[in-house]
Amino acid sequence: MELEVRVWDIRVGRNEATLNEEDARHLGIHPRERVTLFAGRKRQVAIVNTTKSVVEKGIVALPRDVADECGLKDGDVVSLKPAEKPRSVEFIRKKMEKQALNEGEYEAIVRDVLAGNLSEIEITAFVSALYINDMTMEETGYLTKAIAENGERLKLEGKPVFDKHSLGGVPGNKITLLIVPIVAAAGLTIPKTSSRAITSASGTADTMEVLAPVTFNAQEIEGIVDKTGGIICWGGGVNLAPADDIFIRVEHPLAIDPHNLAICSVMAKKYAVGADYVVIDLPLGPETKVRTMEEAKKYARDFIALGEKLGIKVECAVTYGDKPIGRAIGPALEAREALQALEGTAPSSLTEKSCEIAGIILEAGGVARKGEGKGRAYDILQSGEALDKMREIIKAQGGDPSVTSEKIVVGPHRATITSPGSGYAVGMSNKDLVTIARAAGAPRDKGAGILLTLSMGKKVKKGDPVFEIYAESEYKLEQAVKLANQLQPIELEGMLLERIPEYRVVE
Amino acid sequence: MELEVRVWDIRVGRNEATLNEEDARHLGIHPRERVTLFAGRKRQVAIVNTTKSVVEKGIVALPRDVADECGLKDGDVVSLKPAEKPRSVEFIRKKMEKQALNEGEYEAIVRDVLAGNLSEIEITAFVSALYINDMTMEETGYLTKAIAENGERLKLEGKPVFDKHSLGGVPGNKITLLIVPIVAAAGLTIPKTSSRAITSASGTADTMEVLAPVTFNAQEIEGIVDKTGGIICWGGGVNLAPADDIFIRVEHPLAIDPHNLAICSVMAKKYAVGADYVVIDLPLGPETKVRTMEEAKKYARDFIALGEKLGIKVECAVTYGDKPIGRAIGPALEAREALQALEGTAPSSLTEKSCEIAGIILEAGGVARKGEGKGRAYDILQSGEALDKMREIIKAQGGDPSVTSEKIVVGPHRATITSPGSGYAVGMSNKDLVTIARAAGAPRDKGAGILLTLSMGKKVKKGDPVFEIYAESEYKLEQAVKLANQLQPIELEGMLLERIPEYRVVE
Repeated sequence: MELEVRVWDIRVGRNEATLNEEDARHLGIHPRERVTLFAGRKRQVAIVNTTKSVVEKGIVALPRDVADECGLKDGDVVSLKPAEKPRSVEFIRKKMEKQALNEGEYEAIVRDVLAGNLSEIEITAFVSALYINDMTMEETGYLTKAIAENGERLKLEGKPVFDKHSLGGVPGNKITLLIVPIVAAAGLTIPKTSSRAITSASGTADTMEVLAPVTFNAQEIEGIVDKTGGIICWGGGVNLAPADDIFIRVEHPLAIDPHNLAICSVMAKKYAVGADYVVIDLPLGPETKVRTMEEAKKYARDFIALGEKLGIKVECAVTYGDKPIGRAIGPALEAREALQALEGTAPSSLTEKSCEIAGIILEAGGVARKGEGKGRAYDILQSGEALDKMREIIKAQGGDPSVTSEKIVVGPHRATITSPGSGYAVGMSNKDLVTIARAAGAPRDKGAGILLTLSMGKKVKKGDPVFEIYAESEYKLEQAVKLANQLQPIELEGMLLERIPEYRVVE
Repeated sequence: MELEVRVWDIRVGRNEATLNEEDARHLGIHPRERVTLFAGRKRQVAIVNTTKSVVEKGIVALPRDVADECGLKDGDVVSLKPAEKPRSVEFIRKKMEKQALNEGEYEAIVRDVLAGNLSEIEITAFVSALYINDMTMEETGYLTKAIAENGERLKLEGKPVFDKHSLGGVPGNKITLLIVPIVAAAGLTIPKTSSRAITSASGTADTMEVLAPVTFNAQEIEGIVDKTGGIICWGGGVNLAPADDIFIRVEHPLAIDPHNLAICSVMAKKYAVGADYVVIDLPLGPETKVRTMEEAKKYARDFIALGEKLGIKVECAVTYGDKPIGRAIGPALEAREALQALEGTAPSSLTEKSCEIAGIILEAGGVARKGEGKGRAYDILQSGEALDKMREIIKAQGGDPSVTSEKIVVGPHRATITSPGSGYAVGMSNKDLVTIARAAGAPRDKGAGILLTLSMGKKVKKGDPVFEIYAESEYKLEQAVKLANQLQPIELEGMLLERIPEYRVVE
């Protein structure tokens, strides 16, 4: 069928062609099926949208990028034919029919996802099938390799590569900013790619960005790691495991997190950086991904099993995730607290957790004896070696190596939230704290966030300060304070404990 | 977050807003999640697309229809907030987790599908879950009612309403053009809505359109049916069970046909026209939907069970679907053959099948005794009553009631395809015949198609005519002839049968 081209001045990065419903019918294709456009010697497959009225009969509307790709302009005539479905659609249907797929089939799906040959409908059907029917560990290995191998990979030859990953859900998690310099100071190699916040108050990449640039391509990462042994950069700057991002785009609106796909997602990035050894931090808590010790054990078993398929040694550490790590939430506040820890003046819970995880890596890397890793990590921290290494990394990433925790600029507008009653501080809502920090401007306003002033388990009297809110504008501070008073994220328990014996007597 | 509006001059009927990736991150939303746009007093929920570069930071790009809806123009400032997921996303996830949904949950999903509150990802996840986990008959009933009740419905009060449906896959199926006038001539009510061809050579609506207009709204349909007892119109002209069309849009690219959803799809349209009694024609054959007698029985059982839930009496008839019905394929050729049958001069296989199905309806309607329906249908056909009724219906639909089979204009360019060898005609490929008819121009060119000249099971000699191709242009005729010679849709079997004893002797 020959149609006249109308170019729409948009570029959406999807190969789409919009036809009048009747033309589509006469071509014999349903909406979201494919046509091949023949433009001179070029041919381009596009997914078809249909419309009753926007595009008249005889016209095919193409977004600017597709038109440019084919060298077509308004008024050109283009020939259209129904295109074959890519074979991976068959494999997706096979997975929907509860069959296991083989290595080549996963490879084909990942390639077609990346080439734009699969529509969102087909990708969603695939992810839904993985969620409903799950994958065997064999299959998970195939998919992980296919995702990692169809993307950029770091080449850090010569030395074994170490890495860590924390499953999400805990605010204030700045342990990477301690672990990377400790591990690198011990002479090991740790190229850490991190994410930015989407729903949290600060991603590790946002926090590190307070100290140095974080966007580097693969070659730059290799250069920095070769020089310093470590890096803390943004994963989005390098094209590691790009198919994973496309699968995540389907998971989020559905709020699903297929178990083995979640494990695959983490490990594909580790495989792509060339990790030989990975420690997985599994924070356990009522608002994290891992809710029970049973779940934590299942995650651990599966991470280790997948690691075996990939030739990566994995160890898992279950940690407490029921409250923020340290006292600071928000990019600049967290960066400051991490520096304080490196300078030796931060709360012990942060140092404690960082040294636990770093210690596991030091033991695995053979620079500490079994059982002595945590102690060795402490030594490196307290001797100032970790701080020196962090400055070296900051410099290599293009930041100011003379930075100190005191030089970090935090939000100038501040308010203290006080306790509305008296009692023991028995819990706090991670989710509410994040909501308040985001209302204050985090992560966009680097200086915005929360600094906790109370300690868990301690007695609090009415009017005692419980946390401070930092903001870069008066308006956002007010919004955050209003929210804090509404949400009351700190849970107090009355001093009833002492009265229990009386009740018992009454019984 | 406040952003400046940029209007894109497209209208795609989807509520979408495109943001820079960074702005989306700072809003805390992932691609394909929702934002609420606040424009003065109006608010509008839109699904978010993100881009690295097409839309700069600080801008939100809106398609023309969304902008118009909100009264926004280029350069306006609009406020955006993350929007809640509709509750039906939870129900979809519940279905993915293998749980049965209740009536209210199906109702909520269908409403949100129709209101545009669910993205294609969410709709695909729902359809995928139905395909993988299937529905109970209870659930199928809920979904069918929800689909039918959220759409237009015919009001044909006073009389019982009869209907029929043929499961697809058989070319040349013009039996509706005989059944409707036979049934209406017997005094029963049969408001038949039909589809147009998408991948076939002619849908019933395309065929009927040769004789009269087929696009009517609900009120018009009611008027025509009140007057004549019958109608053969295009389902797309009236908004019956509109959610079904949206589900089908997801099924096609995946080439999936979830069993109970297929049954629901047929029955929702019957429920919406107010049918009290439906006969389902299940064509059995190697290229139809129903491949084995077991499958046919399962379809029959499930159609009947769903009918019970809906208060519709259902009977099923398994028919042969391994070759075209009658001799004609293509809109005008089929309309002509149907008229010939009404005039008493068509091949008996077409008349036979039509009277079988019509007879079942006549018995159900109490105008023929049990076992005498088919005979009664024949009588109505041979007496000319059916032809008179058809003319009455054609007139009511705005066509020429004086039409005869001889007045139908068919393609002026014709070619005869002859047999390349000698043998018994033992089979023909429906799929190949359709491909050839479409190459000749069907269904767009009404006069294009195929007329079979051979009979199955008969001896054919090399050079004997097997079928004729009709086209409206010389070029398309050539294309179709080329294809016919390539595909060889008629299967001949050598006269080897006679030689078998000789082989046996050799053994």
